[in-house]
Amino acid sequence: MSSIFTKIINGEIPSYKIAENDDFFVFLDINPNAKGHTLVVPKKEVNKLFDLDEDLYNKLMSYSRKIAVALEKAIPCERIGMAVIGLEVPHVHVHLIPLQAMEDIQFVKKVKLQKEEFEAIAKAISNNL
Amino acid sequence: MSSIFTKIINGEIPSYKIAENDDFFVFLDINPNAKGHTLVVPKKEVNKLFDLDEDLYNKLMSYSRKIAVALEKAIPCERIGMAVIGLEVPHVHVHLIPLQAMEDIQFVKKVKLQKEEFEAIAKAISNNL
Repeated sequence: MSSIFTKIINGEIPSYKIAENDDFFVFLDINPNAKGHTLVVPKKEVNKLFDLDEDLYNKLMSYSRKIAVALEKAIPCERIGMAVIGLEVPHVHVHLIPLQAMEDIQFVKKVKLQKEEFEAIAKAISNNL
Repeated sequence: MSSIFTKIINGEIPSYKIAENDDFFVFLDINPNAKGHTLVVPKKEVNKLFDLDEDLYNKLMSYSRKIAVALEKAIPCERIGMAVIGLEVPHVHVHLIPLQAMEDIQFVKKVKLQKEEFEAIAKAISNNL
């Protein structure tokens, strides 16, 4: 069965898309730790980060940097944090999270946003790419 | 003033070293979230991950992958998690953490290890490089 991220990539589940290229799809986390919480996902469905082949892993990290730089311009924050965990969805995803405090990257505090806010944030990040 | 990591790299503060090359120094976190919690640090003292120049950033990610693969062989775990936060020490460091559960990467639970355990873990990781 396809992962939830593959369904998002295929457009079967809607998302607040920021960017995509041949290898990766970038969209807002629908249950964000902080405003601007972004996921960078390889289109190829692989469970664990370090099981990606070396070339695709390097491309993922390089592309995540590009997204993080745009995110930092779009969203006021102390810095952009990065995390790859993957215990919940078995499809590699890089979390890029605008941080003000440690709790923003502990996955304990969540923020509620309206559709219009998600749309505006995705657009602001995309415009900085 | 030098960061605590620069002092470790320069040998002014002792550490459980795993590896180093021209650009990076790798050692065990002294206050680990989980057994095998490792830090990969650029020798160049830069505060924020995405302020590293693109070449050094890409090298850091590539080298972290190599360390993570060795770590996964040395320490039984569900997978290796990666996090870059940096709100406490203003010197880029990649956390590589053997995960069993989400709390292992939330920086809330800490494990106590003896000197001999740290030494054995550092050696086991190093031996898998």
